[in-house]
Amino acid sequence: MNYRTTAYTTGIIMLVEAALMSVPFFIAICLSENTVFAFGITLAALIALGIPLVIKKPKELWIKPKEGFVTVALGWLIMSLFGAIPFIVSGAIPNFIDAFFEAVSGFTTTGATVIGDIQALPKSILFWRAFTQWIGGMGVLVFVIAVLPKSDTKFFHMFRAESPGPQVGKLVSKLKHTALILYAIYVAMTILQIILLSIKMPFFESVLYALATASTGGFSNMNLSVAAFDSKYIDTVITVFMILFSINFNIFFLILLGKFKDVVKSEELKVFLTIIIVAIGAITASLLINRVYQSFGEALRFSAFQAASMVSTTGFVAADYTKWPTAAQFLLLLLMFIGGSAGSTAGGLKVSRVIILFKSGVREIKSTRSPRSVNTIRLDGKPLDYIVTHGTMRYFVLYLLILCGSVLLVSLSNPGFGSESMLADLTAAVSCLNNVGPYFGALGAAGNFSSYGAFSKLVFVLDMLFGRLEIFPMLLLFYPKTWKM
Amino acid sequence: MNYRTTAYTTGIIMLVEAALMSVPFFIAICLSENTVFAFGITLAALIALGIPLVIKKPKELWIKPKEGFVTVALGWLIMSLFGAIPFIVSGAIPNFIDAFFEAVSGFTTTGATVIGDIQALPKSILFWRAFTQWIGGMGVLVFVIAVLPKSDTKFFHMFRAESPGPQVGKLVSKLKHTALILYAIYVAMTILQIILLSIKMPFFESVLYALATASTGGFSNMNLSVAAFDSKYIDTVITVFMILFSINFNIFFLILLGKFKDVVKSEELKVFLTIIIVAIGAITASLLINRVYQSFGEALRFSAFQAASMVSTTGFVAADYTKWPTAAQFLLLLLMFIGGSAGSTAGGLKVSRVIILFKSGVREIKSTRSPRSVNTIRLDGKPLDYIVTHGTMRYFVLYLLILCGSVLLVSLSNPGFGSESMLADLTAAVSCLNNVGPYFGALGAAGNFSSYGAFSKLVFVLDMLFGRLEIFPMLLLFYPKTWKM
Repeated sequence: MNYRTTAYTTGIIMLVEAALMSVPFFIAICLSENTVFAFGITLAALIALGIPLVIKKPKELWIKPKEGFVTVALGWLIMSLFGAIPFIVSGAIPNFIDAFFEAVSGFTTTGATVIGDIQALPKSILFWRAFTQWIGGMGVLVFVIAVLPKSDTKFFHMFRAESPGPQVGKLVSKLKHTALILYAIYVAMTILQIILLSIKMPFFESVLYALATASTGGFSNMNLSVAAFDSKYIDTVITVFMILFSINFNIFFLILLGKFKDVVKSEELKVFLTIIIVAIGAITASLLINRVYQSFGEALRFSAFQAASMVSTTGFVAADYTKWPTAAQFLLLLLMFIGGSAGSTAGGLKVSRVIILFKSGVREIKSTRSPRSVNTIRLDGKPLDYIVTHGTMRYFVLYLLILCGSVLLVSLSNPGFGSESMLADLTAAVSCLNNVGPYFGALGAAGNFSSYGAFSKLVFVLDMLFGRLEIFPMLLLFYPKTWKM
Repeated sequence: MNYRTTAYTTGIIMLVEAALMSVPFFIAICLSENTVFAFGITLAALIALGIPLVIKKPKELWIKPKEGFVTVALGWLIMSLFGAIPFIVSGAIPNFIDAFFEAVSGFTTTGATVIGDIQALPKSILFWRAFTQWIGGMGVLVFVIAVLPKSDTKFFHMFRAESPGPQVGKLVSKLKHTALILYAIYVAMTILQIILLSIKMPFFESVLYALATASTGGFSNMNLSVAAFDSKYIDTVITVFMILFSINFNIFFLILLGKFKDVVKSEELKVFLTIIIVAIGAITASLLINRVYQSFGEALRFSAFQAASMVSTTGFVAADYTKWPTAAQFLLLLLMFIGGSAGSTAGGLKVSRVIILFKSGVREIKSTRSPRSVNTIRLDGKPLDYIVTHGTMRYFVLYLLILCGSVLLVSLSNPGFGSESMLADLTAAVSCLNNVGPYFGALGAAGNFSSYGAFSKLVFVLDMLFGRLEIFPMLLLFYPKTWKM
């Protein structure tokens, strides 16, 4: 390990967090909320600890893959720890584990909450909760790369660790430019959503919901989530943006450049849109046949919202889907697993991985029928390297192992009986590992994580981080070998 | 397709089934049950249709992999169709779909039932139900190979299609001898269990339970399964034999030869026993901590029984595990997935596949830490071919795709709401695909499949066949290309 480089990067992350936290600090001052001290002391700590780390810049900034991964994982842990302090000091979430859970849930864009009465929180805290998601959505290190003057391919491995999906497409040759373009698209689309929402919502709330949608986080300022508004317009805007933000950002860049042919060629985009349309159709049918809603319009509105919410891993709730027919619920659960596209802010397995897995499964049939024929798996028409398909399947297996382990640990530490408790534990772990937020259980869609014990919450925290950083960076932290000089 | 060879083999299967069905026919005559006609007419049909198929022996018996697989799948379907006729004609299960479900459940050693009042059935029908499992446990084609005079490696692909697990170990150079040795071990251990059970059970019931245990089928003659006896002795004997019958039969052959060193070396055996011991320990602890049972002895007895029942995919029920703590239930569900060893009568993914999957997942971590190092996966100390690990993962992905598709089809056709219905549909499909039998739902452990509709039952029938024949042979039946001349 090159400790000096790691320390330097950690210092930068802390100073960036301080800069970002000055926004809620400023809000607290303007509204003279009693959270001024909480944000102020955290800011002071971040600056006081961050400056000594960056003051001595290491000569050799070159970062090896392993070091890049570990630095990212460490950075996310530190970011979450400091992000939790305002919750604790302000008294919004007095318990440390709870506050840490909430911060990790924000940064990883999970949007799972342990707060019972969200409506009672001060505005600066509500903004910080929403803002953590937006920071985590695109990645803080992507931000660092975008703003640092002389960053280049040295940081590629950190970029790779934070960007979701099996491949990282560099938009342009310079990493710094790629990061800048990504952030520009991110900011522009967020602003557009704020404008559209503010037509039917107070401005402050429009900001909160746009930040939660853009990051596919899903934190709400209402205990009942989006269902509290019960507005057709708001549901529609959020549905459309949830889908947009789970599309690979490269697609938007290609649209900006006018390369529509390349957009149409994207297999991931076509499959993603097909999955959404088929799922919405099937859920709408299931809701109408079982007479959950009387009109086609209502059934379509809620099925589209929940399908988009689950597949984008946002986790907003507009209707209590835990009361829906089993087929509709099972489809939503499948969408949680699939997740959004690679290179978007969405979590889950990612559509491109699902495509590779699906084709690998189908290929196994073909190879049995005619063992000698070679059927290479193609994505976007290009043959995939054996190593990519093999790696994707191993990732999937590892992902399921972590899922099983988490459910076991949670169920062992949280005694419950019967099928409701089992489904709740199982889907809560699925929800955290895929960075979704809500789960399926006796408490309904509005049920939050406050009923779980401290140990279970820590398991869920790990799951959220595993999910957001795609397992490896976090696992490396636990390897003793990683810490050898 | 070589239709003549397929027809010839199908004819042999029908005649073998006729020979086997003469046992319950004989029982019916001895006890003068009203099932004599039902068995008699099925026997007559099997013989009348089977003889013309075998009368003209094809000159070229050589069977290609594809043909072998298709022949096996077709053979199993025909066997199940004729096996269902006595149920229908005798009036024991008047509905065709139900009778077909019961026959497939027997032959695939699933042991899931649609019969409401099992105790009311005539003895000849109870015996036929139990016997179907025993026939399916080792495989009817293995039997054909064992008894045919001149069978040799020509039949290897059929042998491979019917034998569970990723690899087929030929015990001795001649396939016929291997099949004979396997059947000899099978018969001997079944007889031993009959003797041990008959100490505390009527002889007829001892036979039924030994046939159900040896095949890891799990049909019972009581509505409450093994719980009806509430005997410590019976529970213990069945627990031990469920574990024995889910160990690779090669191990017993090695023990007979005195090659204990080779037995100790078997990684699959060590992992399998470790899984069972750890699972029993954890479930016992969970039952004691949550005070489901008061004494250690009782907790151990029921946890050992249910763990052995699930991992061996037998599916006997000695206690209503659906009332157990979530952790215990989740462990049982995991055991259902794992299943027994390759080369045993047990279903599930098989321990050796789980080992390969686990090592592949762990290897993915290692390869991220040091991408250039080559970590080959080893089983029994021998490095595994890339193709084997790749194939195992693709099999696993395909298996999960079939599972998801089944749950969707079942939930779409069987409207239900809430978490109980969702967990029931999900675990019912898991249970059928792994050839276990019982599932987790509102009806408790004694809940059977009679509450599902005809379409769902057909989906479950396919799952059971997919599970028993390890997917491919069944899939080939649906390929139009398979049927080209």
